[in-house]
Amino acid sequence: MDAHQTITCEIPMRWGDMDAYGHINNVEVVRLLEEARIHAFGPPGGTGAPGETPPVDLFSSVATGVQALVVEHRIRYTATLDYRNVPLKVQVWIAGIKAASLDIAYRLLDPVTDRVCVKAHTTLAFVDGDSGSLLRLSPEQKQRLAPFEGKGLFG
Amino acid sequence: MDAHQTITCEIPMRWGDMDAYGHINNVEVVRLLEEARIHAFGPPGGTGAPGETPPVDLFSSVATGVQALVVEHRIRYTATLDYRNVPLKVQVWIAGIKAASLDIAYRLLDPVTDRVCVKAHTTLAFVDGDSGSLLRLSPEQKQRLAPFEGKGLFG
Amino acid sequence: MDAHQTITCEIPMRWGDMDAYGHINNVEVVRLLEEARIHAFGPPGGTGAPGETPPVDLFSSVATGVQALVVEHRIRYTATLDYRNVPLKVQVWIAGIKAASLDIAYRLLDPVTDRVCVKAHTTLAFVDGDSGSLLRLSPEQKQRLAPFEGKGLFG
Amino acid sequence: MDAHQTITCEIPMRWGDMDAYGHINNVEVVRLLEEARIHAFGPPGGTGAPGETPPVDLFSSVATGVQALVVEHRIRYTATLDYRNVPLKVQVWIAGIKAASLDIAYRLLDPVTDRVCVKAHTTLAFVDGDSGSLLRLSPEQKQRLAPFEGKGLFG
Repeated sequence: MDAHQTITCEIPMRWGDMDAYGHINNVEVVRLLEEARIHAFGPPGGTGAPGETPPVDLFSSVATGVQALVVEHRIRYTATLDYRNVPLKVQVWIAGIKAASLDIAYRLLDPVTDRVCVKAHTTLAFVDGDSGSLLRLSPEQKQRLAPFEGKGLFG
Repeated sequence: MDAHQTITCEIPMRWGDMDAYGHINNVEVVRLLEEARIHAFGPPGGTGAPGETPPVDLFSSVATGVQALVVEHRIRYTATLDYRNVPLKVQVWIAGIKAASLDIAYRLLDPVTDRVCVKAHTTLAFVDGDSGSLLRLSPEQKQRLAPFEGKGLFG
Repeated sequence: MDAHQTITCEIPMRWGDMDAYGHINNVEVVRLLEEARIHAFGPPGGTGAPGETPPVDLFSSVATGVQALVVEHRIRYTATLDYRNVPLKVQVWIAGIKAASLDIAYRLLDPVTDRVCVKAHTTLAFVDGDSGSLLRLSPEQKQRLAPFEGKGLFG
Repeated sequence: MDAHQTITCEIPMRWGDMDAYGHINNVEVVRLLEEARIHAFGPPGGTGAPGETPPVDLFSSVATGVQALVVEHRIRYTATLDYRNVPLKVQVWIAGIKAASLDIAYRLLDPVTDRVCVKAHTTLAFVDGDSGSLLRLSPEQKQRLAPFEGKGLFG
């Protein structure tokens, strides 16, 4: 059984995300993953101006100068994704928590047909922006993420 | 007096719209104008998959193969635009209707402070995708746009 | 007579600059203008890592924390721009020097047919990143730009 | 022994590829992979206008209407990538050839320090744009790719 919570986001596509094939470009899908991460966990600390509190506030307790860096992406495109002026449905959960990194899992669904078009994992690490050294996840961060931890998508 | 109607859109910024200066990049502002046009008037016919009906449906009566092309942009950046995870407020109206083109006017407002950050005009023309020849606006299109016609922003 | 010097740049397009119409998207044209500015005048000081000296080094004498901000764009799209895996030809010159800003003029030419596809102006100002106040162009900057000053493209 | 040929590309970064952290954004790295694929194997058939012949012409013998689609990306970011106005060095080779898909491997190197910043794989498939059905690689395509086949980057 895999009884974890999932964060469901509505992420708008942009018309310009389409490429010359007339579908959402594979690179822009990675941008949509970034937007889903930010919707779920909030904008990285120290960037932008204040806005809304996200469903899971992962960055509010992070010290100044800490950067959340992508260590690895794995992205499987299971169906071509069509542009619509209706936000994409994205399911986000945690596929793994390690000492100094976390694995985020996503499923992107067509908002009209509910077809799964993309499955993806992102490994994210917290890094000291000055020294470049990895930072351990705090007990507080682990506690916030725990209810969302479930199975990963890639064997 | 300038008693026209205005279409007010909520256009989400993306974290990746920021550049190395930490503000929304001037190029991405032009992408946000594209999104505001599409929010207000609908996606260009023949692209993407079906979605919602826009406030003013400019493209539904357009024949297959017709493209809506940007002829000119004029964009004044009056204040730096900060990223927030709150949609931008964009006011859209029509600054002029000619035989074969229309002028769209926009005002971009910070969603928290209401400060006007960008004022812009786009001249849009309808073109036959095969022959490249300009197409006249139909009486139906002009009638739909008329209530939104007001003063322009540049001299 | 208009006997100024012009900086000619070769700016690669990217396949992803095309949109669903199969042409270079109007927004990506503005990105190509940014690239032409950087090719001609160098990357804005304080961003990125060291590279090559540009044709006209506008930013090397700029103090730390100074940002070069776009105040206005005016862009006329005179022909659809086709993607090729051959760099675009861009002509850059100065259309005006004021106390605290400069006008950059561009012409974008198809690299095979030499057809002019875009004509554009950008007004650029130097701003103190902390206080936001405008900074005057230095005599040294004006002197470097003087040989490239010519007529503008918009009346 | 792994005595295959490698295609080495010079891929320019753009200033706008940096994000608010001041490094090349992880999403734009995926765009740079797309550019490296196109540099090595040519632009997908049926898109854009004619240009130069690529090192390995993978698409010239592809029938009209055939699309080259990304099935999977795996991307490991081993060091932050700094923007420079000097083209990135990218090594491209083939990590696997199957009946109806191929695995492309890449290494992205800082052009000044030669540090490897990104290692990646892309699985690409050819698809009939109308029916959506997978197409087998032709003997001619396999023959062209064979000299570039070597070991993959992910165990």
